[in-house]
Amino acid sequence: MTPSTISFTTDYGLSDGFVAACHGTIARLAPQARIIDVTHLIPPGDIRRAAAVLAQTAPSLPPPSVHLAVVDPGVGTERRPIALATHNGFLVGPDNGLLIPAAESLGGITTAVHLTNEEWFAPTVSATFHGRDIFAPVAARLATGASLLAAGDPIDDVVRLPPPYVEQTPGRLIAEVLTIDHFGNVQLAATPDLLPPDALALTVESVAAARTTTFGDAPPGALVLLTDSAGYLAIAVNGGSAAALLSLTPGDRVTITY
Amino acid sequence: MTPSTISFTTDYGLSDGFVAACHGTIARLAPQARIIDVTHLIPPGDIRRAAAVLAQTAPSLPPPSVHLAVVDPGVGTERRPIALATHNGFLVGPDNGLLIPAAESLGGITTAVHLTNEEWFAPTVSATFHGRDIFAPVAARLATGASLLAAGDPIDDVVRLPPPYVEQTPGRLIAEVLTIDHFGNVQLAATPDLLPPDALALTVESVAAARTTTFGDAPPGALVLLTDSAGYLAIAVNGGSAAALLSLTPGDRVTITY
Amino acid sequence: MTPSTISFTTDYGLSDGFVAACHGTIARLAPQARIIDVTHLIPPGDIRRAAAVLAQTAPSLPPPSVHLAVVDPGVGTERRPIALATHNGFLVGPDNGLLIPAAESLGGITTAVHLTNEEWFAPTVSATFHGRDIFAPVAARLATGASLLAAGDPIDDVVRLPPPYVEQTPGRLIAEVLTIDHFGNVQLAATPDLLPPDALALTVESVAAARTTTFGDAPPGALVLLTDSAGYLAIAVNGGSAAALLSLTPGDRVTITY
Repeated sequence: MTPSTISFTTDYGLSDGFVAACHGTIARLAPQARIIDVTHLIPPGDIRRAAAVLAQTAPSLPPPSVHLAVVDPGVGTERRPIALATHNGFLVGPDNGLLIPAAESLGGITTAVHLTNEEWFAPTVSATFHGRDIFAPVAARLATGASLLAAGDPIDDVVRLPPPYVEQTPGRLIAEVLTIDHFGNVQLAATPDLLPPDALALTVESVAAARTTTFGDAPPGALVLLTDSAGYLAIAVNGGSAAALLSLTPGDRVTITY
Repeated sequence: MTPSTISFTTDYGLSDGFVAACHGTIARLAPQARIIDVTHLIPPGDIRRAAAVLAQTAPSLPPPSVHLAVVDPGVGTERRPIALATHNGFLVGPDNGLLIPAAESLGGITTAVHLTNEEWFAPTVSATFHGRDIFAPVAARLATGASLLAAGDPIDDVVRLPPPYVEQTPGRLIAEVLTIDHFGNVQLAATPDLLPPDALALTVESVAAARTTTFGDAPPGALVLLTDSAGYLAIAVNGGSAAALLSLTPGDRVTITY
Repeated sequence: MTPSTISFTTDYGLSDGFVAACHGTIARLAPQARIIDVTHLIPPGDIRRAAAVLAQTAPSLPPPSVHLAVVDPGVGTERRPIALATHNGFLVGPDNGLLIPAAESLGGITTAVHLTNEEWFAPTVSATFHGRDIFAPVAARLATGASLLAAGDPIDDVVRLPPPYVEQTPGRLIAEVLTIDHFGNVQLAATPDLLPPDALALTVESVAAARTTTFGDAPPGALVLLTDSAGYLAIAVNGGSAAALLSLTPGDRVTITY
């Protein structure tokens, strides 16, 4: 089945023409493909955040889609350009760990390829804009039904990010902050099964918090712990920002006691 | 006539994957529909601004369109999910007043429905992301030509926002600030017919202002009062920000004397 | 050959409905056209930046495209609305210099037209939103294959921006900053042929810099001079912002010695 949709995630920002140059490249090579922008506001070089956002968004796209993601501080150096196949779509980007969580959310890697077939690239490849010159052309060709194995050489040693920190002890859960969203909701690298179902009153970083289903189940300003729309434990404030209230940033370790 | 276009307005921001998850959901259920993003930078929870922006934008879309709008601080609580029909398109979102001004700009509500048909929703509905799990699927189904009445139960008690403040006395007009745009132009909740056509020199908050047709009709830096592209009275500065000059924010009441 | 794609560049920002109103207008008049947003975050009224961004992005779009660009501080005054033909596409916008660099990057102007045919405009033209009421409708009609010459009267006196400053003396190159991108890379209005190929160690504003191919060719934090993806000399910092390091803004003159 040929993918009809290409998702696109970068740290390019929205004030230059970089995103549009990639859209244009795709429109030339795969005019029938629909492009869905995930976000281009990943902080420059923040591979972990891009990986988490893409992994949580990719399952909402029509399977099979091609997921193009470029957060690439090593552009133009020896880091490899790669593409991955899963049972539910393809991923294209740099070999720096960025693509792996999304590949897992799509069912796991079935094939990994080092992109070495220069016939799939732009006629001239710049040293600093592989999104336009390598990754977008490869994503476009996969969206026309071309075979992944024609893109390069199979590999089995893709780079992986270290897993986020999670520690469980009796009455306590310590988990790393995975992402913070636009509303200030703090997503933890932990799933609800790591807390006892009857632990409805807890402390989060020494602040009392209620375990609820949604924001509005608590009074305005109250701290809650809920299961977010991606299936993770998240700390939220009804009508406010939990990240601001607790001064948390991604990578911080949060202690929950119950 | 089946709608071919879905407009999309939220306070989701552009740095997470929320907007893309909704685009992906629509692409799965209504692959032929074009999605036009109105804005996703509504300040979190600012229902009034979202209502005003959507009402002023919806008439520019191809009729009939489906207008999907989600600014939903009460997500997951008892507030109802609704959809409205008008003579020029549909609206889908929470029952908190958000959709009503746009419905009026499209000719007025002909049918209102409480979305109760769970077969139209995602197979699993999260507690915190009804945009992806309820509203986007319903918008997509309406864009495939499904009947609004199959989406739930007719209602006649939709929630409405209080009207903005406008007061007219001899020689004076007081009007609430409806929106402030990216350029700092201050749109008032008043139409030009509320001022005498011969009142060409006025004061706005005690500052002298000329009544003009466009920005460039006054010297750089001068305050003008004009009719904006949505048909409202607006305060502007040629080459500058009227909102900054007069320290105005939405909801403030502005006094014009003439 | 009929253009299938319309690119769109403005200073409208992303928080209002202005961009969507133009998308909707195009969707009504040219429903088959794909719209690619270049950027809407041009600083208000910054014609030079918009011109540079569009010129560097337009060649990546499928030829022939229609390039719609509106940075228009003179909206509603005597400045003319124009459209240009090139061998590789069309450009539509105000006659203030904005379109010319992109026209040159597409092979040069073959025809220039003052948009005077009001039948191509919206039925009612506002005084302040010519993007929606004049420029988007004209772009849409060109994307349906309508003849440029039907849009108005041929002209040969389009407005041009003064060229950016570049000065070469023995051992020294002075060049104006053309753009600064999201990453803080500083693009100069000079091409690599203006430096001797063997000048690998230079000073940029009295700071030592290496001439490299890409960012990662230097240690983190080091200043480099490279050829960017648009073919210009650019100053960059591996993993940092050259604009911040050197306190540069567009229009500044940078001195390179070698």
